[in-house]
Amino acid sequence: MMSAVDAHWMQKALRLAERGLFATTPNPRVGAVVVQGDVEVGAGWHPGAGQPHAEVFALRAAGSAAKGATVYVTLEPCSHLGRTPPCADALVAAQVARVVVASHDPNPLVSGQGLARLRAAGIDVTEGVLTAAADAVNIGFLQRMRTGRPWVRAKIAHSLDGRTAMASGESFWITGEAARADVQYWRARSCAVLTGADTLLQDQSRLQVRMDLLAQRWPGHPQVKPPLRCVIDSQLRVPPEHPFFAESSAVLCTLASQPERDLEPYRARGVTVLQAPALAGKVDITFVLQQLAAQQGVNEVLLEAGPTLIGACFRHKLIDEFIFYQAPRLLGSTGRPLMDLPLSRMDEAINLRVTDQRQFGADWRIMARVEGTSTDEVNARTR
Amino acid sequence: MMSAVDAHWMQKALRLAERGLFATTPNPRVGAVVVQGDVEVGAGWHPGAGQPHAEVFALRAAGSAAKGATVYVTLEPCSHLGRTPPCADALVAAQVARVVVASHDPNPLVSGQGLARLRAAGIDVTEGVLTAAADAVNIGFLQRMRTGRPWVRAKIAHSLDGRTAMASGESFWITGEAARADVQYWRARSCAVLTGADTLLQDQSRLQVRMDLLAQRWPGHPQVKPPLRCVIDSQLRVPPEHPFFAESSAVLCTLASQPERDLEPYRARGVTVLQAPALAGKVDITFVLQQLAAQQGVNEVLLEAGPTLIGACFRHKLIDEFIFYQAPRLLGSTGRPLMDLPLSRMDEAINLRVTDQRQFGADWRIMARVEGTSTDEVNARTR
Repeated sequence: MMSAVDAHWMQKALRLAERGLFATTPNPRVGAVVVQGDVEVGAGWHPGAGQPHAEVFALRAAGSAAKGATVYVTLEPCSHLGRTPPCADALVAAQVARVVVASHDPNPLVSGQGLARLRAAGIDVTEGVLTAAADAVNIGFLQRMRTGRPWVRAKIAHSLDGRTAMASGESFWITGEAARADVQYWRARSCAVLTGADTLLQDQSRLQVRMDLLAQRWPGHPQVKPPLRCVIDSQLRVPPEHPFFAESSAVLCTLASQPERDLEPYRARGVTVLQAPALAGKVDITFVLQQLAAQQGVNEVLLEAGPTLIGACFRHKLIDEFIFYQAPRLLGSTGRPLMDLPLSRMDEAINLRVTDQRQFGADWRIMARVEGTSTDEVNARTR
Repeated sequence: MMSAVDAHWMQKALRLAERGLFATTPNPRVGAVVVQGDVEVGAGWHPGAGQPHAEVFALRAAGSAAKGATVYVTLEPCSHLGRTPPCADALVAAQVARVVVASHDPNPLVSGQGLARLRAAGIDVTEGVLTAAADAVNIGFLQRMRTGRPWVRAKIAHSLDGRTAMASGESFWITGEAARADVQYWRARSCAVLTGADTLLQDQSRLQVRMDLLAQRWPGHPQVKPPLRCVIDSQLRVPPEHPFFAESSAVLCTLASQPERDLEPYRARGVTVLQAPALAGKVDITFVLQQLAAQQGVNEVLLEAGPTLIGACFRHKLIDEFIFYQAPRLLGSTGRPLMDLPLSRMDEAINLRVTDQRQFGADWRIMARVEGTSTDEVNARTR
């Protein structure tokens, strides 16, 4: 049973973990608090890859006060030697009396071994405190460890009548500034933003994090590690001169069959080229996502694309979560749909599970997951 | 300035007015409370046409205690002899000291004269207490008196991706039971339900008030005067044998050019026939609504129809309010739209003003008005 005191300190550790929300990729966001009696004697969070883990910062701050203390940590302490020494060993060395954890680390290199090491050293271990909230903070990391696939959120801005643009493609702007600021939050916490050639050709977007808008949504000056910006472009329709490729962190996902001489102008601009096998003549998106996870440690992906690419991802069951921004407007019956999704019978209709619905300016944001996806099954199994 | 005491008693009078919500048509819903000091000595509401007005019931209940009392009434007391004697005279005869009113009666036969008569008799009159709430209770009556048109609400049940049915027309059911129960509330408070031939041919609906569902939404046993059920059918495509025509209160709205011999089978079943001039070969819906207002005293209309009729009504600016029931489902990009509304440029997009948004089971109800309609202008002028 979870005590209110444990929940209180774990909540604090979670808030610390969130300071790394935009920066720790490919690592998870982790926070830790060291408590003696009812007094906090140390706290820390993981700021990013290559830097010490949260427990190390917290133990450093506590110093000798860590002896006999309780340590709240949002993710099971690591037990393997990575870029930094194992945190489980550091906790043992500090002679803490008790460790409370929220999420289990599904990393096959950790997975219960961190806790086992603590228990072997006589440390009291409590599990399951605010686990759901902690799992949500690292939803992409946990999924990547379990399945090799990132957590993919599809962002769709549409009118009340379900249209994302006029038939011509014109769509500037459907939603208001508060909703667009919220999009920056999702971009910033993603390891990669994924789009299609059509979207780039339509509106010259670079899909970067706009810090001015992010500041409206997430006050303070958060550390942001810019997400990769990936475009699926089987036929190299987006020219190398496009502004999307002018900045670093651009990834061109195209067919393995594209000749090197056509790819060279992209590479010359510093663009990373990811070549994928073809599936019905198009880039195999499942392969792309697996590669982004395996090669770049991509945990969370924000899919910002037109109806064709979103429809293709949906049909391949690659979308874990939708973020709908619904504007109180009608774009009319000739406008573009949310995604290409031809269905003919009511019993084919897709049921969504709405997890959150709230107002942003005049618009509504609806967070929804597809009922009964394999992802949900995975979550249910590991819960 | 409105006192909290006045607001309290007017709120009570409004709750009484709502007891006639489903029954007073073509009359307005009115409630009245008689107060001596801080004690209620009488209360009443108008139960329906031909029966006494709210003030009469309240004064009867108060008896001699009405002398020197304050009377709270949700609508300006009538000053003309209708089916019942004028209420202003009754208030004067009862020697009340003060009358507090919420809504003004725009009925040209009343319009300020009721209040003038009270003041002439030395009664203290306070206006403007909870006026917006009281106007909302009689939104259709007030609009009919001002403009000769009923207040038209278009009800649309649709998926999150803006589809009301599959391409085939299949749509059974999009929303859940709680949303369908709410529809009964809107049907019950309407003087007429309006639909099109396509809808009747598609699903054999009779569009009656389902009392079992209404009881879920509005507990108790409310008095319900069944609304007229009207179908627009220019070409007499719905046969007289359709279940819609089997019950009383059906109205067939068709072209004036339809020959009497084709109409006779409908009339023989007790169907009221409303013949309208043609507009581009179709029934002139504006004419139909004006006739329903003028001939039948129709205040509120619930439009439950397919994309064609809703689109036509919208383009003729006949829709005052939308009631969207949005289900957390996707029906796909080939499904039917909310309404036929071909638009080609973003600057033609229709901006809606959402007045209410709440959950019914898994579905959301979104009440919205069109920004800048003539109705809004009328409301702004008369506010």
